[in-house]
Amino acid sequence: MEHKIYFDNNATTPVRKEAYEKMLPFLTEHFGNPSSVHWAGRNVHQAIEEARSNVAGLLNATDKEIVFNAGGSESDNHAIKGAFFANKQRGRHIITTSVEHPAVLETVKDLKKFGAEVTFLGVDENGELDLGELEKAVRPDTILVSVMYANNETGVIFPIKEITRIVKKKNPETLVHTDAVQVAGKERIDVLDLGVDLLSISGHKLYAPKGVGALYIKRGIRIERLISGGHQERNRRAGTENVASIVAFGEAARLAADEIEEEKKRLSYLRDKLENAILEKIPYVKLNGHKAHRLCNTTNLSFRYVEGEGILLSLDMVGIAASSGSACTSGSLDPSHVLLAMGLDHETAHGSVRISLGRFNTEEEIDYLIRELPPIIERLRQMSPLYNRRPDEPEPFRVETCHNHEHGEE
Amino acid sequence: MEHKIYFDNNATTPVRKEAYEKMLPFLTEHFGNPSSVHWAGRNVHQAIEEARSNVAGLLNATDKEIVFNAGGSESDNHAIKGAFFANKQRGRHIITTSVEHPAVLETVKDLKKFGAEVTFLGVDENGELDLGELEKAVRPDTILVSVMYANNETGVIFPIKEITRIVKKKNPETLVHTDAVQVAGKERIDVLDLGVDLLSISGHKLYAPKGVGALYIKRGIRIERLISGGHQERNRRAGTENVASIVAFGEAARLAADEIEEEKKRLSYLRDKLENAILEKIPYVKLNGHKAHRLCNTTNLSFRYVEGEGILLSLDMVGIAASSGSACTSGSLDPSHVLLAMGLDHETAHGSVRISLGRFNTEEEIDYLIRELPPIIERLRQMSPLYNRRPDEPEPFRVETCHNHEHGEE
Repeated sequence: MEHKIYFDNNATTPVRKEAYEKMLPFLTEHFGNPSSVHWAGRNVHQAIEEARSNVAGLLNATDKEIVFNAGGSESDNHAIKGAFFANKQRGRHIITTSVEHPAVLETVKDLKKFGAEVTFLGVDENGELDLGELEKAVRPDTILVSVMYANNETGVIFPIKEITRIVKKKNPETLVHTDAVQVAGKERIDVLDLGVDLLSISGHKLYAPKGVGALYIKRGIRIERLISGGHQERNRRAGTENVASIVAFGEAARLAADEIEEEKKRLSYLRDKLENAILEKIPYVKLNGHKAHRLCNTTNLSFRYVEGEGILLSLDMVGIAASSGSACTSGSLDPSHVLLAMGLDHETAHGSVRISLGRFNTEEEIDYLIRELPPIIERLRQMSPLYNRRPDEPEPFRVETCHNHEHGEE
Repeated sequence: MEHKIYFDNNATTPVRKEAYEKMLPFLTEHFGNPSSVHWAGRNVHQAIEEARSNVAGLLNATDKEIVFNAGGSESDNHAIKGAFFANKQRGRHIITTSVEHPAVLETVKDLKKFGAEVTFLGVDENGELDLGELEKAVRPDTILVSVMYANNETGVIFPIKEITRIVKKKNPETLVHTDAVQVAGKERIDVLDLGVDLLSISGHKLYAPKGVGALYIKRGIRIERLISGGHQERNRRAGTENVASIVAFGEAARLAADEIEEEKKRLSYLRDKLENAILEKIPYVKLNGHKAHRLCNTTNLSFRYVEGEGILLSLDMVGIAASSGSACTSGSLDPSHVLLAMGLDHETAHGSVRISLGRFNTEEEIDYLIRELPPIIERLRQMSPLYNRRPDEPEPFRVETCHNHEHGEE
């Protein structure tokens, strides 16, 4: 039997059956424009509002704080550009981190043309921020701090609640945005507890279709709109609503909220089993971010003496889909900016693979990977002149233990 | 039998079966991220490029000139804001018309905060532009002219080829954008012949799903991106692609290109039959824009002495979905900005109804409307004190004839 094992759930997820089935009628008989007042529009409008309630519920937000849009990148752009343009009379300083998703990094870079001054916070070898550095960076003219909730490549979780507390204490007027795209559906999110002003999520990371997302905008916070035009989304995002995908997103969010604890337990077990087996069976492996709090589903491993691309191709040949990092930067030959920021040298960063589990992965699939990966690595290393020159070298960064960390809200 | 007759195809269209069936596998087994290099991403990437070819074909563009996005409003925002921010060192003057869709009108208004100076061209009582006025308006610092290809409320078609010629002759550096959302699939579009630099279209107006659209960016034209981030769409629009909807959009575009002449003939016949019957059976009716070139599917009628909302509610009760104008402004109590710009008084503009036909409408449905509408208007007028006070008044704007206009490319 041909294997098709998908271990790239941080890149995208399959649409879950319940969401798929709920969306189909909105591609067929319920096709009206939600703004229309006649029969074709009415139930469609209602369906969007039901989905809004479900997405709000996933975040512990209120319905009116949810703006539907086309996905995580649009959410990040709307939050950051919108906050900047609404507040640039007050200041032009933005703080973010060097390990953000491109949707944040490129957005703040593009804002430099409009006078933005950006501070990029670094991370340590575990991928963690220095909160003292953050505190020092906040100034009277800091209008926005944008820090991701969890890193898409390593799964490292940042303490957003603590970050918000530090920022607001130093400058109560500074807005705090977090890109929670990788957290939604994997960890419980509570915007009230976090205290953030803006939070981005995306449908296709939690088993809804691609092309739909949401931005949480805290009540009372005013930001400029990114897409001007019609009155949709309470004048905060113009354009006919992507009804079917919004309906699917709502259903996926509702189910995620229900299942989150159980699924977290299941994925943590599978992930830990996988990590422990790899570290036991394969020498010269570095588990990136292993000392930090991490998402329950994400493993990022550097295999010394081999190229990540070679590993991925070999895995692909036995039916296993994994990734060398962000899908949004794949195709590029540059090593991961996240791993470089954590202090890895270029060679090690190049030898990295991300395995991200999801709700459709089984223990059998984990066992299959545990069986297939060691001979792949061994074969690639045998072909590597670097490896053959150094047979007796001590392991440069062999990880001793792999604890099952708790990843609660911080 | 309960009637469900949809005459609001300018607001949105049902997804056609062929597009629906082609998209489903991309919501199920072909769920990969198109940026992924493993098995789950490969065929998905290919499917997007096939769709791109089909959309390019509909416009006589090349594949690389097509940027997929979330819809017509995003296209308009990307074109206008992108052109402005890329060129604002050269000038800040934008020309548009007073009858544009809100996605254009609100966008240029929002750009005023960034120093844009906007000239709004008016229209005459037929909804047509004065091209002499346009020519006079173009200045050395005019960086963008944005004129819609056809009006969504009246169907009036603007002579974009002639407009581009006039603009480029006066200032060759001025970019020309056209919102062709209402034209795509109804009239043949040839970007080379038109000579425009930027052209917006939307999937859900041509029997693809909501939430997908495209911006044509002429080769060599550089505009700023609206959504910053990943490398998707050749760095012109970040965010994981809305794969399933793009695939459906491609299929709908391919079929539209094939069927356009035949469907135009069919819809023109139905539309003319409808208009002639209404003008014959109902007194005090004004056919808005009737002397102008118009889209083959659109009729905009003002019924004196009654409110458009009353007509729509009555039509809805007999299963007919029509509109008082743009879905993007419905819900608002203001009369149509398009009809006011054409010189209609508030009362007449308020008494207007748009009937927009589509590929699923039949002659039986037209006959049903012809049968149902006269008694509805008569009943509403009997309830109107205005009507009862003026029984012998001469018809204020009864249209004498309704010619079947040609609507070729201009």
